[in-house]
Amino acid sequence: MLKVAVVMGSGSDAAKMEPAMEILERFGVPFEVRVISAHRTPDEAREYARAARERGVGVMIAGAGLAAHLAGAIAANTTLPVIGVPLQAGPLAGVDALCSTVMMPTGYPVATVAIGGSANAALLAIQILSLGQPDLEERVRNYRAELARKAAEADRELQSAYAEHTQDES
Amino acid sequence: MLKVAVVMGSGSDAAKMEPAMEILERFGVPFEVRVISAHRTPDEAREYARAARERGVGVMIAGAGLAAHLAGAIAANTTLPVIGVPLQAGPLAGVDALCSTVMMPTGYPVATVAIGGSANAALLAIQILSLGQPDLEERVRNYRAELARKAAEADRELQSAYAEHTQDES
Amino acid sequence: MLKVAVVMGSGSDAAKMEPAMEILERFGVPFEVRVISAHRTPDEAREYARAARERGVGVMIAGAGLAAHLAGAIAANTTLPVIGVPLQAGPLAGVDALCSTVMMPTGYPVATVAIGGSANAALLAIQILSLGQPDLEERVRNYRAELARKAAEADRELQSAYAEHTQDES
Amino acid sequence: MLKVAVVMGSGSDAAKMEPAMEILERFGVPFEVRVISAHRTPDEAREYARAARERGVGVMIAGAGLAAHLAGAIAANTTLPVIGVPLQAGPLAGVDALCSTVMMPTGYPVATVAIGGSANAALLAIQILSLGQPDLEERVRNYRAELARKAAEADRELQSAYAEHTQDES
Amino acid sequence: MLKVAVVMGSGSDAAKMEPAMEILERFGVPFEVRVISAHRTPDEAREYARAARERGVGVMIAGAGLAAHLAGAIAANTTLPVIGVPLQAGPLAGVDALCSTVMMPTGYPVATVAIGGSANAALLAIQILSLGQPDLEERVRNYRAELARKAAEADRELQSAYAEHTQDES
Amino acid sequence: MLKVAVVMGSGSDAAKMEPAMEILERFGVPFEVRVISAHRTPDEAREYARAARERGVGVMIAGAGLAAHLAGAIAANTTLPVIGVPLQAGPLAGVDALCSTVMMPTGYPVATVAIGGSANAALLAIQILSLGQPDLEERVRNYRAELARKAAEADRELQSAYAEHTQDES
Amino acid sequence: MLKVAVVMGSGSDAAKMEPAMEILERFGVPFEVRVISAHRTPDEAREYARAARERGVGVMIAGAGLAAHLAGAIAANTTLPVIGVPLQAGPLAGVDALCSTVMMPTGYPVATVAIGGSANAALLAIQILSLGQPDLEERVRNYRAELARKAAEADRELQSAYAEHTQDES
Amino acid sequence: MLKVAVVMGSGSDAAKMEPAMEILERFGVPFEVRVISAHRTPDEAREYARAARERGVGVMIAGAGLAAHLAGAIAANTTLPVIGVPLQAGPLAGVDALCSTVMMPTGYPVATVAIGGSANAALLAIQILSLGQPDLEERVRNYRAELARKAAEADRELQSAYAEHTQDES
Repeated sequence: MLKVAVVMGSGSDAAKMEPAMEILERFGVPFEVRVISAHRTPDEAREYARAARERGVGVMIAGAGLAAHLAGAIAANTTLPVIGVPLQAGPLAGVDALCSTVMMPTGYPVATVAIGGSANAALLAIQILSLGQPDLEERVRNYRAELARKAAEADRELQSAYAEHTQDES
Repeated sequence: MLKVAVVMGSGSDAAKMEPAMEILERFGVPFEVRVISAHRTPDEAREYARAARERGVGVMIAGAGLAAHLAGAIAANTTLPVIGVPLQAGPLAGVDALCSTVMMPTGYPVATVAIGGSANAALLAIQILSLGQPDLEERVRNYRAELARKAAEADRELQSAYAEHTQDES
Repeated sequence: MLKVAVVMGSGSDAAKMEPAMEILERFGVPFEVRVISAHRTPDEAREYARAARERGVGVMIAGAGLAAHLAGAIAANTTLPVIGVPLQAGPLAGVDALCSTVMMPTGYPVATVAIGGSANAALLAIQILSLGQPDLEERVRNYRAELARKAAEADRELQSAYAEHTQDES
Repeated sequence: MLKVAVVMGSGSDAAKMEPAMEILERFGVPFEVRVISAHRTPDEAREYARAARERGVGVMIAGAGLAAHLAGAIAANTTLPVIGVPLQAGPLAGVDALCSTVMMPTGYPVATVAIGGSANAALLAIQILSLGQPDLEERVRNYRAELARKAAEADRELQSAYAEHTQDES
Repeated sequence: MLKVAVVMGSGSDAAKMEPAMEILERFGVPFEVRVISAHRTPDEAREYARAARERGVGVMIAGAGLAAHLAGAIAANTTLPVIGVPLQAGPLAGVDALCSTVMMPTGYPVATVAIGGSANAALLAIQILSLGQPDLEERVRNYRAELARKAAEADRELQSAYAEHTQDES
Repeated sequence: MLKVAVVMGSGSDAAKMEPAMEILERFGVPFEVRVISAHRTPDEAREYARAARERGVGVMIAGAGLAAHLAGAIAANTTLPVIGVPLQAGPLAGVDALCSTVMMPTGYPVATVAIGGSANAALLAIQILSLGQPDLEERVRNYRAELARKAAEADRELQSAYAEHTQDES
Repeated sequence: MLKVAVVMGSGSDAAKMEPAMEILERFGVPFEVRVISAHRTPDEAREYARAARERGVGVMIAGAGLAAHLAGAIAANTTLPVIGVPLQAGPLAGVDALCSTVMMPTGYPVATVAIGGSANAALLAIQILSLGQPDLEERVRNYRAELARKAAEADRELQSAYAEHTQDES
Repeated sequence: MLKVAVVMGSGSDAAKMEPAMEILERFGVPFEVRVISAHRTPDEAREYARAARERGVGVMIAGAGLAAHLAGAIAANTTLPVIGVPLQAGPLAGVDALCSTVMMPTGYPVATVAIGGSANAALLAIQILSLGQPDLEERVRNYRAELARKAAEADRELQSAYAEHTQDES
């Protein structure tokens, strides 16, 4: 079974990337978690990305803030699909990381999710892996069904809370 | 009497949409409140929007944050006027929801109000309904008169607090 | 039959607002077109807005650029629904007009459409009027059906242009 | 001696405009403070602006947030210089108010100061009035001299705190 | 009679500042035009600003683009009111110049007008000077009356162009 | 062999999405091209997305501009990986489409590429498919090798054009 | 040994600039710290900048917020390299200071670092000085090696925290 | 004499970087020009940066657009001062490149100049080199003196063009 690599630029990003690990764990998808920096440990970034495919990694997730080069640095060194998670760090609310992650030049796409969207990064990785693992597809359906059930529940609660207003009171 | 439908994308939006319900209640306009998500419960969004007019709904209000597709998803499935409330969620201060709500393509307008402007969404709905219900128009006038009275009161207070400065002290 | 008032801040906005007039004409909805400025002719803005309802206007559309105060100035003087069209003028791509139009304070909503969205402003006005004029609702449906037909036609063309690629060529 | 009119759109803006009143009081410049809203009390805005010059007002300061139309609404009704203070209100950090205040069309300038810059609005008003009241010019010089003295004091403190580092320690 | 100083950061800004000169000429207000750069000729900026008041200048207008420091550099060296015109230069549409001009620290206000608003800068200067020269106030009124006349003319033209639509055609 | 579905919101987007088709053709990956609108043909969007997996589609690419809901509308109806291409349309340079595409809520990720990045969308799709088709991985490597060769060629040209300057001329 | 001058626009910026002083102290590079304002003490800014080179300063660092003119004012008066640190102050998250610092006109570059990036400003200064002081280069290498060591440590911790997930659990 | 390395991410950036080469040539500073991409030729970027200092390079200039990682990728691999030039490419006016270049994490500063500011990048490099080469400092002074002369000439021309207006015409 293909693994997911979750890489972040700094140990301080761990809490922001935690939802990705939770999703992967919940779905029973094997994964590795690494702290690798495009600037502080660029050789590790290169080597890790280059060796990933043959080490059984199927999708790489990279989370970074500020001038977030990590996803791009990894994408430059692997042909695996790379998912970028722009993280909110510093004063610009993650807009800097979004620009640095999504505006990649032709040839080196980064599949960018929302600012802080580490849970969705994991779900996207799972959807990608589901092409080769039909059971994962079913789990995604179940996960979504649960989201829908929760929405329906909130719907029912709110409907009843305001039930009296559905008739004209004037 | 035509109803107003207040729809939000998540149960967690209820507090942000509460001012809309308060206004509708205050004006005695019947309304329904629903949690329907463009992504989690897309069929409900479609069916609810399609059936709304014949169920006695006159105006639909949709509040959502982030990539706020809800108002547009509803607008695609009804010819009723749809009012969109971009909600502040996540790091972008609601700018993402504003863009997703207001920049609709030709044919599917969403009447967008301010980020977080759920009270104004309800007032706009009431102004729309007032075309067919003259008593609502009077209530809008009264509501505005009260706003004006409060402004005048704050005006008097501030004027007297600084009354001594209206003459040259130098 | 209720009229639509189309107001713009400057004669130079006429081309940008033209799509609104075309839509209204096409739908057979009576309308007036006015050049009224919140700053150059503020009294006209006030008087026109105040008299609109009793003159048979049902919806007011206001298009303006830059610090676009027109829609708000009209909204302050009528309880009719007011639709604002932020226009692109000057260097800020209409973002200034969008902010000035949509971020209205509680009590004075402006139903804002996309930057430059004058056609949608007219369609929104018609959808509002359709609450009291069922024939308009049917015309909106027809209009949308035509949009859907055009999309379907473009779809067919593109599908056939690329038909040969739907099978594996490798 | 000419007065300064300090107008704000809401009683809740009083704390944000307070620095203007403090500056005017300190400089001994007579002033009025008013709560007048471009939308809730538009007639007061018009009448107050129109009568201001003959009532002895020399400069008008208008502070407002969101779609801040107040300064423009006043500028449309007086030939006195109008100073606009964009206030931070709501999610957009005052950028909406800045756009609504500064991007005025030709003929109706608003002298815009920084977001939240009510103290500077008062100083600008005083600098304007100083053209006809030379004593005010001297007070501005004294005020600035005090700012410079404080900067020099902070400079001395910081210099001595780091005095040991001005020589090579390596 | 007090003069207006029109200063710009580069000879290439002359066309963008030209509307200011036209307005001043039209109103018969004496003015000087200077090219002075906060960075290339900082001493001239300082000396010119310091000597301005005693040379008969009443208001200083400074137009600059990019990191537009000129208005601030002048404001630091005179107690005269300084009007800043952010100019569009380079890729940021004048937003950089707007930030650099309007966000001044306490003590050194710059009366900022719209990006590219050199005509309004001149009108603001004239409104300031009108406090001491009543004839200027009358000219401002006349100028505005002409703007209103032109708006009214455009209004009449557009009204008659669409006159046939004011009645229901359906 | 799994197909790629290329969907766009309007026939007028065909030129902007063309690079995706060129890449897919070049790599010999079968694909379908569709014009489907989240607003004009919402049922087609739903049905097409729901049936895609069983019709042999492996990855869906959706390109849209303005309030770009298409990618999200598709993502809501399939568990296949969905790649979103924000397109530049209207005055906001594609920032509106970027926000509408990338800021998706948890559960419904859209793998977003650069504004206008349709070529990269296709490459990302191919990289995803390469997990199950090793020959595609080799073609991606070859494609990148060609990009590197072109960069190296441009490098050599520029190096020789400036060769004389690599030694001190002073 | 050349000194570094650390200048800030206000005493209240000291905490934000503190990381620069810590870096310089750690590297044993002599430095001066000054509070000098482009607007409150413009003559000091000019004189300090002009005398800096002959007083043994090799690099000047200037930190300022809002309309941050300080770095530019210094750059206009010295041919030493000037590093600008845009500081977060006021509502615009430092974007105003970034624009005011980085968008300098030709002839007067400011080497701009990240918003709030005072530590990096000091490191950049040290890298510049290292051209003439080889020992500094070694210290930079050591500093970076420590950053890499810390990243590697965080990497190891996170790897072991998630070690159990690297194998398929499904 | 130390060389300057001018690196750009693509051959298509050559025209945008040309002003850097012109400045370096004019100042007689030896330089190399390279096309090296952080993504297409990442190993070249690494090797070139690592070998630069010992090959006699004193300052590295890197120009790139979009998600501009080049300057950061070089900064990660050298302790030489690295100057980043954000280039305008694609729809975001260079804001993406600015964010990607300037918002670097602690330890890896990039001395960022204005969007498109390649001439200033070269001047900054020369100012850095001037610390060890006093003759360069003199050339910078001369260059600036010429800029000042041109400004003074434009000043004289504009002054005489408007000379007649310096006296009251009213």
